[in-house]
Amino acid sequence: MKISIIGASGYTGGELLRILYKHKNVEIDKVISNSYKGQKIAELFPNFRNVLDIEFTGTENLKEDLKESEAVFLAVPHKAAMQYIPDLMKWNKKIVDLSADFRLDDKEIYEKWYKVEHTAENLFKEAVYGLPELNREKIKKGKLIANPGCYPTTAILGLAPIITKKAIKMSSIIIDSKSGVSGAGKKCNKNTHYSETNENFKAYAIASHRHIPEIEQELSKLAEEKIVITFTPHLVPMTRGMLSTIYVDLKEELTEEEIINIYKEFYKNEKFVRIMEDSIVETKNVRGSNFIDIGIKKDERTNRIIITSAIDNLLKGASTQAVQNLNLICGFNEGEGIDFIGYLP
Amino acid sequence: MKISIIGASGYTGGELLRILYKHKNVEIDKVISNSYKGQKIAELFPNFRNVLDIEFTGTENLKEDLKESEAVFLAVPHKAAMQYIPDLMKWNKKIVDLSADFRLDDKEIYEKWYKVEHTAENLFKEAVYGLPELNREKIKKGKLIANPGCYPTTAILGLAPIITKKAIKMSSIIIDSKSGVSGAGKKCNKNTHYSETNENFKAYAIASHRHIPEIEQELSKLAEEKIVITFTPHLVPMTRGMLSTIYVDLKEELTEEEIINIYKEFYKNEKFVRIMEDSIVETKNVRGSNFIDIGIKKDERTNRIIITSAIDNLLKGASTQAVQNLNLICGFNEGEGIDFIGYLP
Amino acid sequence: MKISIIGASGYTGGELLRILYKHKNVEIDKVISNSYKGQKIAELFPNFRNVLDIEFTGTENLKEDLKESEAVFLAVPHKAAMQYIPDLMKWNKKIVDLSADFRLDDKEIYEKWYKVEHTAENLFKEAVYGLPELNREKIKKGKLIANPGCYPTTAILGLAPIITKKAIKMSSIIIDSKSGVSGAGKKCNKNTHYSETNENFKAYAIASHRHIPEIEQELSKLAEEKIVITFTPHLVPMTRGMLSTIYVDLKEELTEEEIINIYKEFYKNEKFVRIMEDSIVETKNVRGSNFIDIGIKKDERTNRIIITSAIDNLLKGASTQAVQNLNLICGFNEGEGIDFIGYLP
Amino acid sequence: MKISIIGASGYTGGELLRILYKHKNVEIDKVISNSYKGQKIAELFPNFRNVLDIEFTGTENLKEDLKESEAVFLAVPHKAAMQYIPDLMKWNKKIVDLSADFRLDDKEIYEKWYKVEHTAENLFKEAVYGLPELNREKIKKGKLIANPGCYPTTAILGLAPIITKKAIKMSSIIIDSKSGVSGAGKKCNKNTHYSETNENFKAYAIASHRHIPEIEQELSKLAEEKIVITFTPHLVPMTRGMLSTIYVDLKEELTEEEIINIYKEFYKNEKFVRIMEDSIVETKNVRGSNFIDIGIKKDERTNRIIITSAIDNLLKGASTQAVQNLNLICGFNEGEGIDFIGYLP
Repeated sequence: MKISIIGASGYTGGELLRILYKHKNVEIDKVISNSYKGQKIAELFPNFRNVLDIEFTGTENLKEDLKESEAVFLAVPHKAAMQYIPDLMKWNKKIVDLSADFRLDDKEIYEKWYKVEHTAENLFKEAVYGLPELNREKIKKGKLIANPGCYPTTAILGLAPIITKKAIKMSSIIIDSKSGVSGAGKKCNKNTHYSETNENFKAYAIASHRHIPEIEQELSKLAEEKIVITFTPHLVPMTRGMLSTIYVDLKEELTEEEIINIYKEFYKNEKFVRIMEDSIVETKNVRGSNFIDIGIKKDERTNRIIITSAIDNLLKGASTQAVQNLNLICGFNEGEGIDFIGYLP
Repeated sequence: MKISIIGASGYTGGELLRILYKHKNVEIDKVISNSYKGQKIAELFPNFRNVLDIEFTGTENLKEDLKESEAVFLAVPHKAAMQYIPDLMKWNKKIVDLSADFRLDDKEIYEKWYKVEHTAENLFKEAVYGLPELNREKIKKGKLIANPGCYPTTAILGLAPIITKKAIKMSSIIIDSKSGVSGAGKKCNKNTHYSETNENFKAYAIASHRHIPEIEQELSKLAEEKIVITFTPHLVPMTRGMLSTIYVDLKEELTEEEIINIYKEFYKNEKFVRIMEDSIVETKNVRGSNFIDIGIKKDERTNRIIITSAIDNLLKGASTQAVQNLNLICGFNEGEGIDFIGYLP
Repeated sequence: MKISIIGASGYTGGELLRILYKHKNVEIDKVISNSYKGQKIAELFPNFRNVLDIEFTGTENLKEDLKESEAVFLAVPHKAAMQYIPDLMKWNKKIVDLSADFRLDDKEIYEKWYKVEHTAENLFKEAVYGLPELNREKIKKGKLIANPGCYPTTAILGLAPIITKKAIKMSSIIIDSKSGVSGAGKKCNKNTHYSETNENFKAYAIASHRHIPEIEQELSKLAEEKIVITFTPHLVPMTRGMLSTIYVDLKEELTEEEIINIYKEFYKNEKFVRIMEDSIVETKNVRGSNFIDIGIKKDERTNRIIITSAIDNLLKGASTQAVQNLNLICGFNEGEGIDFIGYLP
Repeated sequence: MKISIIGASGYTGGELLRILYKHKNVEIDKVISNSYKGQKIAELFPNFRNVLDIEFTGTENLKEDLKESEAVFLAVPHKAAMQYIPDLMKWNKKIVDLSADFRLDDKEIYEKWYKVEHTAENLFKEAVYGLPELNREKIKKGKLIANPGCYPTTAILGLAPIITKKAIKMSSIIIDSKSGVSGAGKKCNKNTHYSETNENFKAYAIASHRHIPEIEQELSKLAEEKIVITFTPHLVPMTRGMLSTIYVDLKEELTEEEIINIYKEFYKNEKFVRIMEDSIVETKNVRGSNFIDIGIKKDERTNRIIITSAIDNLLKGASTQAVQNLNLICGFNEGEGIDFIGYLP
């Protein structure tokens, strides 16, 4: 099966390329980027030297160029994705969209947080939020998969079992997240400048990050009530990795062991979710893999639970999760091409 | 005035040396370490080459060795400090103790959290908790100053204004702290091993760190009621710096501006506290200095306040704060020898 | 085919496990470490959680334990390897030894540089130096493969074409190498302590590193004359990666283009060697892969050539090269299990 | 005495500000930057919050603005400096120029390496190359001091004693230098982007870096013959610090001890040069200070000397050296304001 990637020049695009190149069921067809049109991909991604010798294509003849591609990944910024997707739907492509454009169900909320008009609202009903651990069956039947954001992946999977169980005070959720710098992408600015970022730690977009509505929407579905959260992202001086520390107040009387069992039961069939009862949740243990590691600790003194969840922000937080979604919509083995073991150290 | 340092071989000891060497009102007398006895300090701290050519002394003749020292710093681990301090008190020294041994008022709590017997309980009433911004007058009259821990410095100063104002729900305090690796000291283990720590982020000692009782004790005094907190420390892949993100539920209706004004008013005479209304709180802005930077953000959607406070963990979190305390007990200018501007980048 | 690993608890052992677990032609039999005997490998390597659930075995019943293993990797320190290898040879195992014990042809030189007696000199004639790009045919017929050191891999492959061509003054070779910290292994000391190593750069073992005789031996074979080099290793504040900058004086009149062509011709059939004519040799381009990237620059003003060569020190410098050797001695596809594309960023 | 800084918005400008603010003999007059005109310096350098509350001035009324300034630092890029300096000379200011514009004696060489026309050639004879350890007397009498580049500082001071002694083959000099990322300044590009630079090591500008003519010019003066060098700079994933590893072939028969004594004798009156006989030269030992640490090792097997020299690239490589020069031209104590002890860790 042939697949193409639109917006293949960023970090998640490069990781998609790396993963799909080795995927047994697919063949890379077109690698599309208007900025790098005509350049060899190995010029931009020197790790592909002597490996893959194809050129970036522009978007002038998209229909023609994609005619052999059954599936298309979009790794473009929000707003750009919604410009391509209506056509791709018309051309009957399977779509995995790594942007935020089809993650939210509500045009108004989208426009409030993203400050742009949404021009393809009619496709909202077709879009499936691509968290396989929660939405597997819908994804299998879907055609337009909205691949989750990196922060939401840690937050939603970290909270799903205890929220589904309705064992907590829904108004008490605080998510304190920490991300490596690659999440900010390739663009150069103060947040990605080495000397400004190295040996530095800071919060940013406190209580105002765009991933808030996405987290709230998915948690609200699980809780069957409207959830409002407090969310603070931070920038960690490392390239890859993301860890969220999540605080919730227990409503019911549950021991730590009972809570851990709720999590183990909830994820018992999930290959890529690891419940770490001993709280050894560290970003390096999942780096280079599609795993999410989740640890649970009860603070007996305050009756809170503290959940830590860790992913590789570019993989389970983006590119391997996107391929996991592709595998589901295409009926491939769900772990095909993404069952790497993380690398240490 | 002559001063000596017991336990001068660790990172905080080395920083004390560096600061005191340039302090106008003091002269370094003895630099004491049983492990390095007889060695030149520049062998251990090569930054002192060609600068300071003295040797470490052991503790065999402590009384004699310290006879000219009016003040003594202890930069030894907890438990070791309480072995020296009764004698030092008898010999009438001014003492700044960087260990935890005299920070807590309650023998039972100390023994519960530190798992060792406290053998100098009788000195508890003499000890003053050395946070100058809160206890300045007591410190001036004190003889035994218990220099605060690094995490508590960020937590207590970050919360003091709003707790004193009693504007929050006292049971809602969550402190999510992040520290550079130097806080773990010179000893080698998994938490200080480069390849295990670099490009990694993790929580540790969740809801069980020894700084919890210290934070609770001091906050309870300010609140005039018993406070219990949730506290999670994390390890950041950087050498220096500490930032705490603190979450509290507002009890009163206060705007963000009103809260900021409470903080500005509270710290209006404090040279080393900077209220950053624009939330630009980053560890690098305080690195190399005695400043604590505090930012305040109201989460309008949840009626929480999110406070970020940043220090250099080895300086305001240890060594410059210790010298600030010395300055107070000796009647020197409070900022003498510690009014460095942090260095960028 | 079953394989076992002796000394599987270090970084190269962990990487061997990760690679061999996914290798199509082999099955991991025993994972041997006396220090971790009885522990699950996922306790030591949390990246293996939910993936591989086997225990470390001790060496008490080595013969019995290895009876189904056709091949054995040794990832133990020098001196330990020579204690196991005579037995393994007797038991007719195929051996890939990652230690230094059988890299040198000369007992005297070994003992001079490694300061221990060599007790298995009789096996020297059996050992093949495992640089596939230079010794492929010998390796295929070998039974005891001495896997090269990381520094020697960069130095020898970086110099082989121009030395074989005899185009340089053989006495002029200077190798200035830089290694990430993982090369120092898991043991804790000043060179691996985060706060001592981060934000620091230094040379070590100047003109006295143990890889010198190994480099000289292999270069001398290529030159057909005795070569003596100057070699300086440095420690770079990063976990993985190694780059050598190599200086040689040209003897013949050759243009930069001619030299590059000598390299391209020499390595024209080598899948894992990339000649980067534009000098874009960076450790991150090879990280996570078995590639060695080599760049060539002629300094027209001094008639020197400056060669840069970069590898992942734990992979082409250790574990993937070991598997490349296994593939050769077993007649597997040479790139089987090791043809990863490096990961960016 | 009042001083001003033109181009105060970069890293070396910020460090100049930090140093001069605490300098006993000077007062900061104008802080000049057209890009940041009208902004408070603490907006750009948050480390100055609550410390220094002045605004950046533009260059429209330079003459008037500088009328009270006796000395002026230029921390602008090359080419920009030569536009201001003729006027500053006319106005009789003492000048320390951190750019490259007046370091070279020869217009043709300048124009060849910097690819711009030099428009103030007439001032070449006034300019003094500001390496105090070599040119102290000239600097004292100078008015226009060309502050050395960072790489040249390590190279020239690292080689001066042995070249002056004429004990080496002058054609054999190879300088392999490694710099932290702050040397690339505040501008954003691939070389300063965190995710591209972190966990990466590479050479750049091999045999073509602009500091080559500066190093050759100064070494040639010491050697009293024309010297041509090979020079390779590398980028280290750390913010601050620079180390050069220098290789030279001995001409005379000298023991390592004799060479060390040549260095000790040569620098015996130099407060800021430390000869480290035990080769403990590490960038962190000089970070935050004006020291240069130099180590000497003889490679007995090849009769080469390997010199390592380390500085803080922003301080002895730029800003503290600039103040050292100011101190000399103004007759202040040479170490005034710059005799910091480096900070560890």
